Amino acid sequence: MRALRYENGELSLDEIEKPSDEREALVRVTLSGICNTDVEIVRGYAGFEGTIGHEFVGVVESAPEGSEHLLGQRVVGEINAGCGECELCLSGDSRHCARRTVLGIVGRDGAHAEFLKLPPVNLLPVPQSVPDERAVFAEPLAAAWGITERAPVDKEARVAVIGDGKLGLLCAQALALAEPARLVLVGKHANKLEIAGRRGVETALLNDVQGKWLREFDVVVEASGSESGFSLALDLLRPLGTLVLKSTFHGETSVATARIVVDEISVVGSRCGRFGPALALLERGAVDVESLISEQYPLSDGVRAMERATANGIIKVLLKQ
Amino acid sequence: MRALRYENGELSLDEIEKPSDEREALVRVTLSGICNTDVEIVRGYAGFEGTIGHEFVGVVESAPEGSEHLLGQRVVGEINAGCGECELCLSGDSRHCARRTVLGIVGRDGAHAEFLKLPPVNLLPVPQSVPDERAVFAEPLAAAWGITERAPVDKEARVAVIGDGKLGLLCAQALALAEPARLVLVGKHANKLEIAGRRGVETALLNDVQGKWLREFDVVVEASGSESGFSLALDLLRPLGTLVLKSTFHGETSVATARIVVDEISVVGSRCGRFGPALALLERGAVDVESLISEQYPLSDGVRAMERATANGIIKVLLKQ
Repeated sequence: MRALRYENGELSLDEIEKPSDEREALVRVTLSGICNTDVEIVRGYAGFEGTIGHEFVGVVESAPEGSEHLLGQRVVGEINAGCGECELCLSGDSRHCARRTVLGIVGRDGAHAEFLKLPPVNLLPVPQSVPDERAVFAEPLAAAWGITERAPVDKEARVAVIGDGKLGLLCAQALALAEPARLVLVGKHANKLEIAGRRGVETALLNDVQGKWLREFDVVVEASGSESGFSLALDLLRPLGTLVLKSTFHGETSVATARIVVDEISVVGSRCGRFGPALALLERGAVDVESLISEQYPLSDGVRAMERATANGIIKVLLKQ
Repeated sequence: MRALRYENGELSLDEIEKPSDEREALVRVTLSGICNTDVEIVRGYAGFEGTIGHEFVGVVESAPEGSEHLLGQRVVGEINAGCGECELCLSGDSRHCARRTVLGIVGRDGAHAEFLKLPPVNLLPVPQSVPDERAVFAEPLAAAWGITERAPVDKEARVAVIGDGKLGLLCAQALALAEPARLVLVGKHANKLEIAGRRGVETALLNDVQGKWLREFDVVVEASGSESGFSLALDLLRPLGTLVLKSTFHGETSVATARIVVDEISVVGSRCGRFGPALALLERGAVDVESLISEQYPLSDGVRAMERATANGIIKVLLKQ
């Protein structure tokens, strides 16, 4: 089968063997989404080598004994595959299992391929009314909604999201559903901000925010992945507020830690969320994901698609298997 | 009166006017303690100019109408003086009042002087059984105990404190009183670690910890004020753990933010604590502060005392007014 692989410092479309593991389900991928994490992996983040990609929708072609109900089902999949034996896994949440593999990120070939394998427990059937183009957003939307597990986004909260890329746009739309007292998305691109604006989210251009709204927010989500985004987030946060870090990227960030101490700020990392709530949101069309799709390429153009994913003005790039 | 002042980039002992403000209490300082924050201010941290110092014990010489009960009392004092009108101040906690002044740190002359002034509400009488040499630790001990307001230090918690300076030694001893399941103080100096060790705290030399105890702690307190301390703290923390930042210092720290995101760590700042619990701990001798006193100088030798405060092997330096 064909797979988009990063190996020995190079990204290429390779012909490799179809995955085979009698304890796991085999999924024929129909659509996969390019995430910034894929881009960071190709820059050396996480030290991963293999097939990249972790956002997908597909059809189960084979399933191990006991999971036959999945056969032929259209599914999305949780990307963390736990050991199944530790305390965390036994509690039903493998996201922090120390021995986990992660689809296309840690020790497990990913989704930008014709087939992938995952433990049956990771797979969730997609409601019929949700087309592939929407279902492929289950993973990043789960991650966006996961912010509510890590920060107090309630009806009294004043919330700002920094970054109008695919992640920021999903975060803003997802957090709007928690109906906070105030929600502002800050970004550099009027046309991208407009997508959240159409869903009733207040938006602001970065240049218009400089020196404004100082210490006015209870929760700020940093989804730009830039040092300046981190610095702006600290400016906007009130004392005892919460800064949510969503972006994973290679390298170090320079941080004015004294601000964190003096204002007793909480900086909380937020990575993966739960798929159940995300699928429910997609089913009821609560979030506009279609407008995020900038371009779609066949898997065979995967290398070019990865280049396009970082081009100016591009939001989400999909790969059709 | 004499006061140790930082002005125009220079530290000097000056003769200035005695403070006078009919709405505030006048305190004759009897003993003050040099904090690392004082040292950082002289390095440019916080942009403060004026009399430095915020750890003190003294006697009230004059008090405004309605606060006559303080006259002649031996007192310590909360260092944040709020506006008295905002929501925070009205709730009884001025520590984050946006218009606050802070003794010897923000817009208010400090304690390394013969006299200081503070609002009467900031002053707490010192129990008779607590000598000046112990009472002068009320402020830093309150800050150490304040960690329990910001991080889940309970009987199940595995806690590490990094840094065996005066702050780390107070943090470790204070947190021991919460009886966590495990508590380790990590530092570079066997003789300093020994002070906490005598109080039953497990201790470890930094060199012996490298590459050990990875992800074994629920809470790690960074009290070394160094970039390497921050990095070690991340290494020791389990996923979803809490890193408490205690040190305020000038400049920026380089942080591997991806670790914070992937392991969903909470980095929480912790600054000032409440004096009530700290005085209670000092009264019952729950914490050994006397062993932290390395040297004591008359206020007239303040400049030299400040130099000594950063000398190798020195823990706490006091000034006798």
